[in-house]
Amino acid sequence: MAVNLYDSAYALENAIRQSDEFKQLQQAYQEVNADQAAKQLFDQFRHIQMNLQQKQMMGQNISEQEIQQAQATVGVVQQNPKIAHLMQVEQRMNNVIGELNQIVLKPLADLYGQI
Amino acid sequence: MAVNLYDSAYALENAIRQSDEFKQLQQAYQEVNADQAAKQLFDQFRHIQMNLQQKQMMGQNISEQEIQQAQATVGVVQQNPKIAHLMQVEQRMNNVIGELNQIVLKPLADLYGQI
Ligand SMILES: [Ca+2]
Ligand SMILES: [Ca+2]
Repeated sequence: MAVNLYDSAYALENAIRQSDEFKQLQQAYQEVNADQAAKQLFDQFRHIQMNLQQKQMMGQNISEQEIQQAQATVGVVQQNPKIAHLMQVEQRMNNVIGELNQIVLKPLADLYGQI
Repeated sequence: MAVNLYDSAYALENAIRQSDEFKQLQQAYQEVNADQAAKQLFDQFRHIQMNLQQKQMMGQNISEQEIQQAQATVGVVQQNPKIAHLMQVEQRMNNVIGELNQIVLKPLADLYGQI
């Protein structure tokens, strides 16, 4: 890989690390982490979420009941203001990453769109 | 999103576009594209591949027979030297993208690893 590619990737990595979005995400994580009740609730939620994602990736069926349970858990979890805030800034960070990905991978999108 | 983030993303996009790996991929695509027999074979292969990926993403079962058919098609397709070369440079480009992703997304990996 050309040095130029690495340099550009590290520059983008640094820009992400310095971004408002990442700093807000870091801060929101620390606030959840420092609050035992919030952290426990959030860990539970993450566990359910990762379980579903794993099932999906492995092509296992996800029941109607499991989806309803997950949605109910989101509802409960979002009652906690620190977690609600964390989810909000996570969403914003994910949007930024999505936009960056679209910019960076444009050469490949152009190429594959062309054939 | 901060201007800095956009600038860094566009710099990386440009570095990818200028990279040996991308230029080789472009070249290899053009060579397959310009060869009617190779192009037809490759389109068939892509169709099978995308079909399987779609099934996988939608959590549908992929039969043993479908996997064997796909593998047989890879075997046939790789007999074509232009396609074999294209697949090789595609693999190299994918590896580069994977490495870049790991560098760029390190701040998030660090954060999520920490909680
Ligand atoms: Ca190179
Ligand atoms: Ca900003």
